[in-house]
Amino acid sequence: MKPIVLSMGDAAGIGPEIILKGLDQAPQEAPGCVVYGDMAVMRRAQSLLGLQGLRLAEVSDLAQLAALPASCLGVIQACELPAPPPWGRISAEAGRAAAQCVSAAARAVLNGQAAALVTAPLNKEALSAAGLPWSAYPGHTELLQAQAAEHLGRRVEELPVRMMLVSPQLRTVLVSIHLPLRQALDLLSTEGILTTLEVADAALRPLLGRAPILAVAGVNPHAGEGGLFGTEETEIIAPAVSRARQAGMQVSGPHAPDTVFMQAREGRFDAVVAMYHDQGLIPVKYLGLAHGVNVTLGLPLLRTSPDHGTAFDLAGTGRADASSWLAALRLARSSIAS
Amino acid sequence: MKPIVLSMGDAAGIGPEIILKGLDQAPQEAPGCVVYGDMAVMRRAQSLLGLQGLRLAEVSDLAQLAALPASCLGVIQACELPAPPPWGRISAEAGRAAAQCVSAAARAVLNGQAAALVTAPLNKEALSAAGLPWSAYPGHTELLQAQAAEHLGRRVEELPVRMMLVSPQLRTVLVSIHLPLRQALDLLSTEGILTTLEVADAALRPLLGRAPILAVAGVNPHAGEGGLFGTEETEIIAPAVSRARQAGMQVSGPHAPDTVFMQAREGRFDAVVAMYHDQGLIPVKYLGLAHGVNVTLGLPLLRTSPDHGTAFDLAGTGRADASSWLAALRLARSSIAS
Repeated sequence: MKPIVLSMGDAAGIGPEIILKGLDQAPQEAPGCVVYGDMAVMRRAQSLLGLQGLRLAEVSDLAQLAALPASCLGVIQACELPAPPPWGRISAEAGRAAAQCVSAAARAVLNGQAAALVTAPLNKEALSAAGLPWSAYPGHTELLQAQAAEHLGRRVEELPVRMMLVSPQLRTVLVSIHLPLRQALDLLSTEGILTTLEVADAALRPLLGRAPILAVAGVNPHAGEGGLFGTEETEIIAPAVSRARQAGMQVSGPHAPDTVFMQAREGRFDAVVAMYHDQGLIPVKYLGLAHGVNVTLGLPLLRTSPDHGTAFDLAGTGRADASSWLAALRLARSSIAS
Repeated sequence: MKPIVLSMGDAAGIGPEIILKGLDQAPQEAPGCVVYGDMAVMRRAQSLLGLQGLRLAEVSDLAQLAALPASCLGVIQACELPAPPPWGRISAEAGRAAAQCVSAAARAVLNGQAAALVTAPLNKEALSAAGLPWSAYPGHTELLQAQAAEHLGRRVEELPVRMMLVSPQLRTVLVSIHLPLRQALDLLSTEGILTTLEVADAALRPLLGRAPILAVAGVNPHAGEGGLFGTEETEIIAPAVSRARQAGMQVSGPHAPDTVFMQAREGRFDAVVAMYHDQGLIPVKYLGLAHGVNVTLGLPLLRTSPDHGTAFDLAGTGRADASSWLAALRLARSSIAS
């Protein structure tokens, strides 16, 4: 089995510690994993946590992993960092290092040397301060999208990506993410919803081994109640559902937003396509953040990540919760296996 | 203890059957209850369900309740209905009868003869067909608001009401309800949010025996992320929170919408003020509809109702789930007791 590559995240955040804490809590998940990071930063996290069980070993490439004993976690030095940066502070150096690690790890998956990428959080302000080319990307998703497009020799616009949030009870795929709600409504389009459905369908088919049963949420109360509470459902959403069905997808909707997520939780749908950020994230996060996983759909590489940020306020305390990162690793592994 | 009055709801819907089914399932809840309805409709529901335990007895006024044996549910003939209407069909007669029952039941609470009102669902189209004065009211809330205002000798505008949804895990109070999402955003105002906070604070204080700890949700992703994803938080919501705090309320926010409901579920807040219908209803309904209860806040009478409609497709089958109606009755009783 090809390895799973783990990017370290921002060295000033909780990334390094949740990787080690997560693998210490679930040592059966460690074999086959390798960190793309900085050796000194990983060693600092190890001594912070006082972990005895898991040893770190620097490897220069993925081929060396096979030679490591099972209790050893391989670390590939994938960035330039003069010294571990202070915890909890935004720095251009840490932002640049985090981006270098992600990029190198993604390359390993794109080249076919690794099976999946699990990213630890990076800090958007640090990334923005990191200088070109990194500062051109608002976050992980755009960086990976650009790198994948280049790898495929295609334009970024030809590689639409969508965020899927996965909890043990619910999968939701978002039509849009970080926009003012008003702008999300302004930009809602039949094409955008149809693309989301195509991306979701293509990503979930191999995972489920069959066509996924997708629900599309409406945007207005009671999905517009026949036009009484808004027209987006009839004018924008229903045509996308109709075209997706014509293309052979198992799609229904628009459904009343206030019950469709509950119905998906009860098993009626494999995933719900949400019309805006909070519509999908409120139900995914409602039962707790610990098990929420973010999956980037549409890329020619499998990438999962925890559903939280760098938590600079917790970094260096050893108190960060590794559950979501561990859930991201487990989801990546189970997706490869399926 | 004063009685709890139960309005029958639309006779063609599931109201009559869920009242009897609920009290049959939880006979300890029956004493002190009285139905405002139609005797023939209630008898039809009784024979549909084949219930033996609970007998029905017509009473002409609340004073006669004390003389009934415990196994007897009093029914006050509160409407004119020539005969039980066919199940599952909209009719002006059933709409009018439902409105008459609600109105008579509400009068009993406003006059101080009863302690609380639990309404069964009415059908909005039937109400609209019922003729004046009933057809002037879109639903229960507006009818009760008008009746309460008249009782107090005040204008309807002086009696702001808000919908609170209660599940075993969460209370959420809505700034607006049945509006297109775009219009809900257009109408969002500091005054409207402040009024919601005042209504919520006043309603929850007696229930909790202390000042409620209220959270206000933002409207944009991450509550606007400092203006990056929208300005409603800084321009509209924060001033309302600030004024409410100055008035002595325990309020915080605007909070990121995608985590504030989870935090309330975990016990951090007594209630969350939601900026639009689905923001509040998605989390309340996520764990199942069976225990969701609707409470009308701001009225000089306690009114609870199940969180579903007349379910014309189920009416007359005996399969309707009485859980939400029963939860509404229990919430009314516990609110009186507190």
